[in-house]
Amino acid sequence: MRQNHLFAPTLREAPADSEAISHELLLRAGFIRQLASGIYTYLPLGWRVLRKLERIVREEMDAAGAQELLMPAMQPAELWQESGRYSVYGPELIRLNDRHDRAFALGPTHEEVITALVRDEIQSYRKLPITLYQIQTKFRDERRPRFGLLRGREFLMKDAYSFDSSWEGLDRIYWRMYEAYATIFARCGLNVRPVEADAGAIGGEGSTHEFMALADIGEDTIASCTHCDYASNLEKAIAGDRDASDDLSSDASTSQPPLPDDEPSNFAAPPSQPPQPEKLHTPDIRTIDQLTAALGIEASELIKTIVALVDGKPVAVLVRGDHEVNEIKVRNYLGGAESFEMADAETIATLTGAPVGFLGPTGLAIPVLVDAAVARMSSGIAGGNERDYHLRNVCPGRDFPLDNVSDFRNVIEHDPCPRCAEGTLDFHRGIEVGHVFKLGTKYSDKLGAKFLNAAGQPQAAIMGCYGIGVSRMMSAACEQHHDDNGLVWPLAIAPYHVHILPVSVKDEAQMQAAEQLYETLTRQGVEVLLDDRDERPGVKFKDADLYGIPMQVVVGKQAGEGIVEFKSREQAVKNTITIEEAIDRIMEKMNSIG
Amino acid sequence: MRQNHLFAPTLREAPADSEAISHELLLRAGFIRQLASGIYTYLPLGWRVLRKLERIVREEMDAAGAQELLMPAMQPAELWQESGRYSVYGPELIRLNDRHDRAFALGPTHEEVITALVRDEIQSYRKLPITLYQIQTKFRDERRPRFGLLRGREFLMKDAYSFDSSWEGLDRIYWRMYEAYATIFARCGLNVRPVEADAGAIGGEGSTHEFMALADIGEDTIASCTHCDYASNLEKAIAGDRDASDDLSSDASTSQPPLPDDEPSNFAAPPSQPPQPEKLHTPDIRTIDQLTAALGIEASELIKTIVALVDGKPVAVLVRGDHEVNEIKVRNYLGGAESFEMADAETIATLTGAPVGFLGPTGLAIPVLVDAAVARMSSGIAGGNERDYHLRNVCPGRDFPLDNVSDFRNVIEHDPCPRCAEGTLDFHRGIEVGHVFKLGTKYSDKLGAKFLNAAGQPQAAIMGCYGIGVSRMMSAACEQHHDDNGLVWPLAIAPYHVHILPVSVKDEAQMQAAEQLYETLTRQGVEVLLDDRDERPGVKFKDADLYGIPMQVVVGKQAGEGIVEFKSREQAVKNTITIEEAIDRIMEKMNSIG
Repeated sequence: MRQNHLFAPTLREAPADSEAISHELLLRAGFIRQLASGIYTYLPLGWRVLRKLERIVREEMDAAGAQELLMPAMQPAELWQESGRYSVYGPELIRLNDRHDRAFALGPTHEEVITALVRDEIQSYRKLPITLYQIQTKFRDERRPRFGLLRGREFLMKDAYSFDSSWEGLDRIYWRMYEAYATIFARCGLNVRPVEADAGAIGGEGSTHEFMALADIGEDTIASCTHCDYASNLEKAIAGDRDASDDLSSDASTSQPPLPDDEPSNFAAPPSQPPQPEKLHTPDIRTIDQLTAALGIEASELIKTIVALVDGKPVAVLVRGDHEVNEIKVRNYLGGAESFEMADAETIATLTGAPVGFLGPTGLAIPVLVDAAVARMSSGIAGGNERDYHLRNVCPGRDFPLDNVSDFRNVIEHDPCPRCAEGTLDFHRGIEVGHVFKLGTKYSDKLGAKFLNAAGQPQAAIMGCYGIGVSRMMSAACEQHHDDNGLVWPLAIAPYHVHILPVSVKDEAQMQAAEQLYETLTRQGVEVLLDDRDERPGVKFKDADLYGIPMQVVVGKQAGEGIVEFKSREQAVKNTITIEEAIDRIMEKMNSIG
Repeated sequence: MRQNHLFAPTLREAPADSEAISHELLLRAGFIRQLASGIYTYLPLGWRVLRKLERIVREEMDAAGAQELLMPAMQPAELWQESGRYSVYGPELIRLNDRHDRAFALGPTHEEVITALVRDEIQSYRKLPITLYQIQTKFRDERRPRFGLLRGREFLMKDAYSFDSSWEGLDRIYWRMYEAYATIFARCGLNVRPVEADAGAIGGEGSTHEFMALADIGEDTIASCTHCDYASNLEKAIAGDRDASDDLSSDASTSQPPLPDDEPSNFAAPPSQPPQPEKLHTPDIRTIDQLTAALGIEASELIKTIVALVDGKPVAVLVRGDHEVNEIKVRNYLGGAESFEMADAETIATLTGAPVGFLGPTGLAIPVLVDAAVARMSSGIAGGNERDYHLRNVCPGRDFPLDNVSDFRNVIEHDPCPRCAEGTLDFHRGIEVGHVFKLGTKYSDKLGAKFLNAAGQPQAAIMGCYGIGVSRMMSAACEQHHDDNGLVWPLAIAPYHVHILPVSVKDEAQMQAAEQLYETLTRQGVEVLLDDRDERPGVKFKDADLYGIPMQVVVGKQAGEGIVEFKSREQAVKNTITIEEAIDRIMEKMNSIG
């Protein structure tokens, strides 16, 4: 491609509304332009990157035995009503009526459509397992679109769905997809970490992983072990039950195994009990910070009580003063509740009689969920359910019931690892670029996707779903691969492989050498951008660094002698070499593309 | 691909609602499935065809110097308001509101988005000309979706837009696209005819062509000359002004040139005038058929008067009794009017005093548009504007004014060709698979897409637009390439190139030969489907013919001796040859793919 003709307008300044470096650089380098909030046009360079990502995804999905198809964006509302998600999905689901007033949704995902398709077309176990995928534009009306392609309203996804006759089969394809994903992200040059995650609104049983591209801008927090390979999304991460304040040098063999959710008897009150609760006068002291300051204690000695309406029903949740309630764990504990709302002051007063800031766990008439870390305390300080009073010596099991003990909190940094006896949890930020879910029979049950099994009995298909945010990968790659001068594309997804920069287009020897190199490389399948613009060298070099094409060849004064400057965009070191050597280096790098 | 795993469910019976052979066969062969009226899922085989069409389109667009990008489907309503099309486009434009109640349209086309993009990014003539294109899902809420992919509501289009600084430049790219289109359709194996067409609602000046795939199911009528290369959409077709009843063997040199629109003086009444109009008592005779039967005359001796509201204003249009009014020609004559509505009986009575069936051209107080064929009549029979009466000897120019004479009718078969002196017009049916339009400055004016020209003056960009219905091409190909047994894909767009059919999968020699052939061909880049299903041969052959993969290799009893049956799906002749010969034949055919 000759740059004179390329539609890739660059901007010298960062656009005012760019909130992430990837967003800024993709705009400045002319890869994307915003049409509306969270809605972007991919200009030719951006589109080339997107297509390369698409191709790598497609190759690995095909290699993993998945078959590509294409489903519509417009989905009849009836299907979403059948699955029960039409009301649940909320305002993120874009709804519209056709000219006959029939309701449709614009697909943010395709579980309903694919399940209905397989229901209608597959009747026998002999046709299973099957994995189908598509690479398609999705729509989701984000409340707050931001960070360019990272959180958009119209975006490119690869979504795959597997259908099996057995759970073992689902497990096989799940891990096959997991491996394919690892390969895809590696081929694209992305530093991605698979983490355990909660299935969330999409629902379903069994294990679930998210693939997180590590980046500070990431909206998700990953907790990963300093010692073993445990890594989890914050939503799902659990702490080991070694006390966080344990001396980490203590004998690892004394550590207990991870906390089982269903054995509250582990947490019976210890034999020697502290004295009875005692009132503390704490006038106007309502927050954890005020309380620790006034009493000269650590937040970890406090028991925090919150009241929430879960699917409209009130529950109290107790966590330690230094911990935060994890809504998802609470919802999951309560049978997969769909909503979780903090109760307001008035509701709390009605339910418990306690004024704001003085709510405590004693004598509550609503169900009390106790986080395991609280259950392990011998006693703590808690609200007194009376204005200006707290209680000390509040004792789990004695002063409040331990009928519902589980993990109800977010982990905090340096919590013990739940898997190994040695490590603690570190926090990182990540961008979710992929996920693999075991859906089980959630959708096949609701939509009636049954097949006849080997015994001739109707059975619901066992499903998995597997997504990759293709356009989001583009931004994630930029977050991971840039420097002060611009983008630095991994070779496999770069819009072009080589950028040829003749210093002066008026110099005949330079242009002849540049054109010849362009032809030679193009013939060998190298994608080359030739900057044939009559611009000052400084402008050309600045634009070249901004575009981030991985190999630059500067054709300058020594062109007549067959000498050029070769620069890897990544290393920023210029090598003055012969044209033949430059070609060799380029072809060598080309061979490294997977 | 092994057929045991392929998701391509076939149907023995034609689905009840299939209205076209392409629709029926694509459903029966498992290439597509309907999700909602006019909305289809492309199953793996259909998706493969679509991607091949896409690739050919992309290659030729790139070769013609166009650059690919991708614009969003969700378009802010503001842009459509700027262009003035938000109200004009009507219910075919799918509208929706986002969660903040901002109005959007789902793009049926992208003139607004691309013009706004170029407006914002291109300021100088130095960056022109530029041609940008995308291959993208489009949305159009058809009043009556039908014929499967031929008239759908969600479909795949290639749309390209050119921006030039001069009309000569537009002309160059217009014809470059025209040539690219001819190549694309030829490469895809489609029999396509470019025809002159009206610009329609998309508007704009200058020439416009539609590319019509010839097929009986086609919704468009093409009028083409029996002698020269004149071909036009019926909307736009004009008849030469040789009298249609002329003896075609008459000396061609006496034929007059095509009718100029703007020289009504050519149609002054002939010197010797017929007698004055005379009333004919025609009780209850209201239709052309009744009239010709009652009076024993030809319809071509009648003058038909219709009254229409064009942009709300009444006009009368006169055509011969054997001709039909062409609304588009009337609208264009009246300065590009947007609406044309036949007046109802009451309106006609109010405007003219005439009862239904007796309306005539004399003494009308509204503008009268006279079709050229009427203007050429020495006299005719027309309605008398009085119940139960017609008039004979109604004379153009004497009994009604010839201030507005032009071509206002549809051509009919055997009309003289407007271009050559010898041919007459034949009618064919066609499916519009592409169009090239000169838009001029229609959109750049409305959206303010100006650049600075060489003289430093702001000037509106001169635009063209160029569409191809990619998914529609798939159906058009099926209409042209099928037989009683199923589809017959052209090699370049076939889902697979070769279908290997072992007669018995339990026969080791057969399976070994089949597998080996599969491997050999696959290694050479041939796309092979291997029917490894344990089915009766009859079932396999039936499915194979239905799928329509262009080359079939039947591996049967002689497999052990290295002998197979080779069949071209098109020719249906089986050749018993060696495996090596089969490979040679296959590779020979493969080399024929452009």
